[in-house]
Amino acid sequence: MNAKQPIAIGIDLGGTEIKLATVDGQGVVRSRDTVQTDARVSGARLLEQTVHLVRQAMGELEGTGVIQAIGLAVPGVIDRDAGRIELTVALTEEWNGYAAGPALTAELGKPVLLMNDAQAATEGEHRAGSGRGFRDFLSVTVGTGIGGGLVLNGEVYEGSRGMSGVIGHTTVVPDGIPCGCGNRGCLETVASGQAIQRAARAAVEAGTWQPATPVDDLTPRTIAALARAGDLTARVFFTNAGTVLGMALANAVCLLNLEAIVVGGGVARAGELLLDPIRHEIRRRTTVFSPERGGVTVVQSALDGYAGAIGSALGAMRLTDTSS
Amino acid sequence: MNAKQPIAIGIDLGGTEIKLATVDGQGVVRSRDTVQTDARVSGARLLEQTVHLVRQAMGELEGTGVIQAIGLAVPGVIDRDAGRIELTVALTEEWNGYAAGPALTAELGKPVLLMNDAQAATEGEHRAGSGRGFRDFLSVTVGTGIGGGLVLNGEVYEGSRGMSGVIGHTTVVPDGIPCGCGNRGCLETVASGQAIQRAARAAVEAGTWQPATPVDDLTPRTIAALARAGDLTARVFFTNAGTVLGMALANAVCLLNLEAIVVGGGVARAGELLLDPIRHEIRRRTTVFSPERGGVTVVQSALDGYAGAIGSALGAMRLTDTSS
Repeated sequence: MNAKQPIAIGIDLGGTEIKLATVDGQGVVRSRDTVQTDARVSGARLLEQTVHLVRQAMGELEGTGVIQAIGLAVPGVIDRDAGRIELTVALTEEWNGYAAGPALTAELGKPVLLMNDAQAATEGEHRAGSGRGFRDFLSVTVGTGIGGGLVLNGEVYEGSRGMSGVIGHTTVVPDGIPCGCGNRGCLETVASGQAIQRAARAAVEAGTWQPATPVDDLTPRTIAALARAGDLTARVFFTNAGTVLGMALANAVCLLNLEAIVVGGGVARAGELLLDPIRHEIRRRTTVFSPERGGVTVVQSALDGYAGAIGSALGAMRLTDTSS
Repeated sequence: MNAKQPIAIGIDLGGTEIKLATVDGQGVVRSRDTVQTDARVSGARLLEQTVHLVRQAMGELEGTGVIQAIGLAVPGVIDRDAGRIELTVALTEEWNGYAAGPALTAELGKPVLLMNDAQAATEGEHRAGSGRGFRDFLSVTVGTGIGGGLVLNGEVYEGSRGMSGVIGHTTVVPDGIPCGCGNRGCLETVASGQAIQRAARAAVEAGTWQPATPVDDLTPRTIAALARAGDLTARVFFTNAGTVLGMALANAVCLLNLEAIVVGGGVARAGELLLDPIRHEIRRRTTVFSPERGGVTVVQSALDGYAGAIGSALGAMRLTDTSS
């Protein structure tokens, strides 16, 4: 046990925080860490912060582990082979077109694998989280936006260009409000953390709700706290989001005959406030897949927001496994 | 070339006709045949008709081929391993729970593989039709109802219970009309051949349309003929169906990052009347997958309604390949 362990570091780059996790050669999670960031910092500053965080982790691990590789999960469309960010809405514009993989590989002297954050989270759920034991499942990450990833036939399914799982931009309201992606009525426009917050603040401004929390402090987290304390209106924002999420997830279940749905991301911390309406709506809309035909299990992520960081570390570790 | 060829027979059992196709050991389609039937005949009568048809084909092939296996495609939920029909809406109720596979195997003295018709059609498109060359595609069959099937990573994706591709029962109108499946607003309730016919007849009865065809003769086929002859209202029924289909298909593209959609089934014979609005809607709702990121190809089935029969023959032939 005194020999140095092979270690992979995973970074999940979000709009409001950077998460870091390390895994060893057996796929066991060794550490977790979170650093607050600012969505509006420049790309260069965020990158600097990321590099600093990785160097710090590398320094701490020096005595006990040998860093094999680093996984970097980012929100947006990525070209995995080229290690390039094609399109990101959650980070600043200057990240678009940036070949983060090769740049960080050169900077850090270790192979860096760039992944989409939702697909990284799916890898994390699949190999170290709530997806273990399911052959066909969808992992949905409900945060500022909504992302997703799929495990089919026991393997992460990437899609023809590595861009599968874009459930946040499936249409749920045909003539709904415009979405940043160019479509209208996307799931993300009505069921994301941002949408819940917007609906809650609009209710206050319209005078239909007088919550015990100041309007500027209303976030998915504080709204959930109000709901748990008995505010029925606060509860409705989660019921509405969960119902629409349930419809979109039911459609995925019909199309793919899934066994399970794993719900993660910051908004999933609301727990049953969100999961109960999701379950109800899926049951109601997938009667073809009745319990006697397997039904569908809906579970909350057990990785407490670290699915993306853990998944990117596991992905990076696997990269070195297959290349050696 | 005088040696007898190995042959597989494929049967596609529909609500209005039985289709038969034969393929040889190289997967080449050798013959196609259609027999009219009646959706309201009893299960026993339809089965008798099917057995008769297969025996006839077997007799005709006697001199030239050796029958290896028979594939039977049926509309509905099936248990492929048990060869049992779990639930069918398009056939009579007595088919529910019927173990057609073992029964026909005993009756015909050849292994009979039971398949879902839409999945059989997907196999047909994949190996002998418009799906060739695509690694990730959805085959959608628009007929009396709407079925689907998926090829992912170059293989037919079956789902956790062999029931994938149920795109006809994905929700497109959250509070839409009740569907036979128990849900509301399913794609099938607004975009199937039956839905197009119902909308057209309703327009005549409401006095908003005076077509050149008697109301009782209005079917997807005759409505398409009117549209081609210049009746703009007739065209609108296909535009409406195609638009809603396009939305459901766009959702599948987002979820799975598909390369292509193959549109088959009787209603697809309307060609561009249906495909043009499908393409328009998919393009509009999948801006994330812009042409420079691969885009999505939408093609009409080239198998002229025989995808299910050909696919079930190919599936049956493969069954004997792997078991030998």
